[in-house]
Amino acid sequence: MSEALAQGATIGILGGGQLGRMLSVAASRLGYKTCIFEPGGDCPASHVANCHLQANYDNAEALAKFAASVDVITYEFENIPTSALDVLEALRPIRPGREALRVSQDRLIEKDFLAKLGLKIAPYAAVNSEAGLRNAVETIGTPAILKTCRFGYDGKGQARIDSAEDISEAWASMGDAPCVLEGFVSFTKEISIIAARGLSGEVSCFDPGENVHKGGILYTTTVPAQISAAQRTDAVLLAARILNELDYVGVLGVELFVTPQGLIVNEIAPRVHNSGHWTQAGCTVDQFEQHIRAISGWPLGDGARYADVVMENLIGDDMSRVPTLAKEAKTQLHLYGKAEVKTGRKMGHINRITD
Amino acid sequence: MSEALAQGATIGILGGGQLGRMLSVAASRLGYKTCIFEPGGDCPASHVANCHLQANYDNAEALAKFAASVDVITYEFENIPTSALDVLEALRPIRPGREALRVSQDRLIEKDFLAKLGLKIAPYAAVNSEAGLRNAVETIGTPAILKTCRFGYDGKGQARIDSAEDISEAWASMGDAPCVLEGFVSFTKEISIIAARGLSGEVSCFDPGENVHKGGILYTTTVPAQISAAQRTDAVLLAARILNELDYVGVLGVELFVTPQGLIVNEIAPRVHNSGHWTQAGCTVDQFEQHIRAISGWPLGDGARYADVVMENLIGDDMSRVPTLAKEAKTQLHLYGKAEVKTGRKMGHINRITD
Repeated sequence: MSEALAQGATIGILGGGQLGRMLSVAASRLGYKTCIFEPGGDCPASHVANCHLQANYDNAEALAKFAASVDVITYEFENIPTSALDVLEALRPIRPGREALRVSQDRLIEKDFLAKLGLKIAPYAAVNSEAGLRNAVETIGTPAILKTCRFGYDGKGQARIDSAEDISEAWASMGDAPCVLEGFVSFTKEISIIAARGLSGEVSCFDPGENVHKGGILYTTTVPAQISAAQRTDAVLLAARILNELDYVGVLGVELFVTPQGLIVNEIAPRVHNSGHWTQAGCTVDQFEQHIRAISGWPLGDGARYADVVMENLIGDDMSRVPTLAKEAKTQLHLYGKAEVKTGRKMGHINRITD
Repeated sequence: MSEALAQGATIGILGGGQLGRMLSVAASRLGYKTCIFEPGGDCPASHVANCHLQANYDNAEALAKFAASVDVITYEFENIPTSALDVLEALRPIRPGREALRVSQDRLIEKDFLAKLGLKIAPYAAVNSEAGLRNAVETIGTPAILKTCRFGYDGKGQARIDSAEDISEAWASMGDAPCVLEGFVSFTKEISIIAARGLSGEVSCFDPGENVHKGGILYTTTVPAQISAAQRTDAVLLAARILNELDYVGVLGVELFVTPQGLIVNEIAPRVHNSGHWTQAGCTVDQFEQHIRAISGWPLGDGARYADVVMENLIGDDMSRVPTLAKEAKTQLHLYGKAEVKTGRKMGHINRITD
């Protein structure tokens, strides 16, 4: 641990949501402080951070002040403007590094990257016009999904195309943004693997979880996933290939489709991931601490799974279930302290120990 | 949960040490913010709190400002000046209440309280002079321990008396403070029980832990304690009696000696307790969340023990062991972010899962 940050050092976190909140808590367990950079006020991460620098990402002065006040910089979301990264990177290390952000900020670049690495992905095509979309639909077929290359999450910035008749409306809904058309994959289940790589290059993966989505938003993650030992091994190996290729430092989430033809990579996220929240209840070291360990130069921790867990997101009005959930045995609550309940908003999650 | 604090409410915590730090983290899991009142700067709790009001306990204006900014007040140490409590109590509820503080702030009052409740305690006598100490030693015998009635912790404010020759020096070392002389108890082991009582009067206890001290400071707590089922039941029943008698709200630590004559109460602490840190690794809901649940009007959570755990304190130079401990399997680290390592200072702890 000669490279490790000293006790009392400060970790800068870009983004003030629930992932930043749980990263901040994990940092505290290892004796570190955090400083949150987030334009919004009263954000979930700021409630458990040593400081909150409230400014916009185009405020170079604030970014420089933030960088000067921390020892290393990480982030809880991937859509950080390049100009902000340029300011920050000149002053402090950013972990995971720029390459991981470059690749994951753009669906097209990400797909090209994964394809070049030899991993299986759904058929895809770049789309920059209605005519281009028409060509792509002809090649890829229907049903297919049109997605903006950038800034999409939780089903936003997406349109489903079931036949040629949907093309005009789908393209119009994208506001002329560069897009990618993805072919449908016939899968038996969705899983994800949360993988970590340390500063010294060591790799450690959590047990894959099985995901169920509702309305484009993650609903539950269940461990263990009902997959074969070979599929489990495949998931670990492909995650490790991605980590090594990116010279990655930190935790990475990889979403996968399980198909008769093998595992197909849906997307990667260069950060802690909603489908890894179960690790809080099932592992000695959870994904948040694993990320902090990696970016702080610690050895990776013991992420072996010791319990069966079902993680369930609490979305919007699910908050009305809290009084009932609070009384349930073997149920850990994690609420994010968000001031306002909104439809589709992630308000918290529960981890139920099921064995 | 009709009485429960609303999401986003703020819990005020008096004291900024590691107990406040871990209470603050637990509060965040339930969607609450915390504000720390602590005279010292850069304190462990402030690193994970929404705000830190840095002022002295004789600053009535600061205390009033603190109270106005929070919804309920709790504390991580019992030696809060009465004058400060008077200011705070006029503005916001203090949980656990004043009676618990009055009793536990003074060893003599505490012993009288426990004796009146019919619980077994070591023989004791009030001592206010050297002559009084001489009389007390004659009655109680040697070896015995002279302790100041107030402000002692981790072996401080204590002197051992092995024979009449020690009396003058022991009394002189107390600086004329009111004292209590305690007779020695011949015990087979020390255990403690961490008990909680909710706002509605429900009581829940964690499994008793077995404690080993070194130099007057807790060294390890091991669960399960090697005690009989009857002793376990006795511990729960006596803790419940104390909680009910004090109309207590929150978590209480009770230190006990196991003797052939039954359980003897050593002392009580009206707060989360070092010997309850193992609950972080062994229970769905740990002592910190249990305390926050109680004072916030939540139902008490599932504190059933699901793992065997050894908690070990990291004191002073034990911090040099962190690089080795960081690599150990089934070992959770909790570091307190204290800027300076000092001999005898609690710097962190580990929870080792042993089954």
